[in-house]
Amino acid sequence: MSAYHPDRDQLLIEDVLAALGNPVRLGIVRELDASPGERTCGSLPLEITKATATHHWRVLRESGITREHKVGRAKAVSLRREDLDTRFPGLLTAVLAATAPARRA
Amino acid sequence: MSAYHPDRDQLLIEDVLAALGNPVRLGIVRELDASPGERTCGSLPLEITKATATHHWRVLRESGITREHKVGRAKAVSLRREDLDTRFPGLLTAVLAATAPARRA
Repeated sequence: MSAYHPDRDQLLIEDVLAALGNPVRLGIVRELDASPGERTCGSLPLEITKATATHHWRVLRESGITREHKVGRAKAVSLRREDLDTRFPGLLTAVLAATAPARRA
Repeated sequence: MSAYHPDRDQLLIEDVLAALGNPVRLGIVRELDASPGERTCGSLPLEITKATATHHWRVLRESGITREHKVGRAKAVSLRREDLDTRFPGLLTAVLAATAPARRA
């Protein structure tokens, strides 16, 4: 595993918030949270180009939200839930519980 | 008050997270949270240009984190704590409780 992953105690709240503050990345985090264990990146239903997806995976990994490793030729990814809950208690729970805005009448 | 402010039930979690995911804006939010009531924008110790400050105030206001109104020729700003706590329970508490990363030995 050569890609950069910050250690748990080096996670920065502003980086985590910025990474979560994007609808595609938030969707990925919701999907990973709902999945037991790890997923291959290709298994997530993302309607974006490969280059855009690669960018989002990198932002999530470098902020410390996800962990990646190679599984053969595929990239497996998992949510660093324990690390996030330890460094920023309650944050991910609050984010994942957030509801969509009310519809305009 | 003519500047755009989203209604409480229209706040978007991704916009709020993106707005909080910046060290200057997070510093402003911490400062406002520690202040009783509202502050004038000029009273915050920001070491940035006026144009940059204006940008950050706008991002905070348009995401629904702050409320602004004119007080004479000054702009007063306050944290929409109750709106945020109602729409996203626990979020701001978790963000404000976040600690800095451990120092490298």
